[in-house]
Amino acid sequence: MKIFNLLVGGDPANLPENWQELDGEWVGVDRGALRLVNEQLKGSLAIGDFDSVSEAEFAKVAAGFDRVVKLNPIKDDTDTEAALAKVLNIDDHAQVRILGVSGGRIDHLLANVLMVLEARFRRFAEQITLIDRQNRITFFNSGKHTIKKEAGFKYLSFIPLTPIDALTLDDEKYQLHNHMVPNARAYVSNEFIGSTATVYLSNGLIAVIQSKD
Amino acid sequence: MKIFNLLVGGDPANLPENWQELDGEWVGVDRGALRLVNEQLKGSLAIGDFDSVSEAEFAKVAAGFDRVVKLNPIKDDTDTEAALAKVLNIDDHAQVRILGVSGGRIDHLLANVLMVLEARFRRFAEQITLIDRQNRITFFNSGKHTIKKEAGFKYLSFIPLTPIDALTLDDEKYQLHNHMVPNARAYVSNEFIGSTATVYLSNGLIAVIQSKD
Repeated sequence: MKIFNLLVGGDPANLPENWQELDGEWVGVDRGALRLVNEQLKGSLAIGDFDSVSEAEFAKVAAGFDRVVKLNPIKDDTDTEAALAKVLNIDDHAQVRILGVSGGRIDHLLANVLMVLEARFRRFAEQITLIDRQNRITFFNSGKHTIKKEAGFKYLSFIPLTPIDALTLDDEKYQLHNHMVPNARAYVSNEFIGSTATVYLSNGLIAVIQSKD
Repeated sequence: MKIFNLLVGGDPANLPENWQELDGEWVGVDRGALRLVNEQLKGSLAIGDFDSVSEAEFAKVAAGFDRVVKLNPIKDDTDTEAALAKVLNIDDHAQVRILGVSGGRIDHLLANVLMVLEARFRRFAEQITLIDRQNRITFFNSGKHTIKKEAGFKYLSFIPLTPIDALTLDDEKYQLHNHMVPNARAYVSNEFIGSTATVYLSNGLIAVIQSKD
């Protein structure tokens, strides 16, 4: 099973500490590809429309990656969606970490949070994690799931991205039992009691965010 | 009609330039209240559980506002939801700008984007704007709406926060006609052709984000 780290073009100040030391293969998405080259991280794939980089910057990207995919800027996919589709096509069991999602355009951040709802990505939702300095976002489809506490992260938030007929959080600090969720909604600032927590959803899809101040 | 500016506790680096000069009444939400005092902005209301400020900081807040509401930290509402409910109770036609939503906890940002879906806030959705340095987020319920271009913002993104049976964008650079949206989804990086753009949604609720790099 491969691990891919997709670096997208958000604010570098929001990246987690020592992000360069993560294990796995690096994929540079648009301006994220340039950042990888500048950090002297060897990436396997660069992908994007590269609209926002100069010709000289693009030459640097082309030299720094084994493979470069230049997308048409007129497209329905975002660069990140195209990158995600590409790495899941290489290994459909891959774990995919997406870094650089925050601190800039909120439309892009929301696109990255919501793309797991698309039919083509939904069955891979549990393989995807969005990571920045203060947040780790994971996703769960229907069923009962165990969440492991990340060291140093205080808060545990549950964000149904769809309606859910019955949501149960029965071993967290604040509990819900077969709670009906009519719309997407953020239930924030819950906390772990132990080193793991359980979420059960009858249907739909939920984002689970571990965060810290 | 009143204008309220709610300052919440996100990263101050993400606030728009000259945010201090906005017209309207200032409301400080939790750590945002302390920031207003430190900026010597006179606020009409400070609200929050103030869990994250020291006793000395809280005394500064108490001295800097006409009115201070200290919430129980064990509550279902977020501080921002409580503040929004409070100002809509003062004037249910108020325009409400929310600043300081980004750059920190993504669970808080998502809570602020999704709270307009709650039954108690939904009819006020079109009165609410979330603003940071690179983004202006507005909300529309079903019907046909005109969006005005904000100077200096290049991109226009449409983010249905609910399923929509028919979504039409017929005077934007990239168009949709009676498009069925099965889940929340971000349609990003559209653009204005003129100084206004039209969105039509048959049902549901959409966030519209003007953003820039």
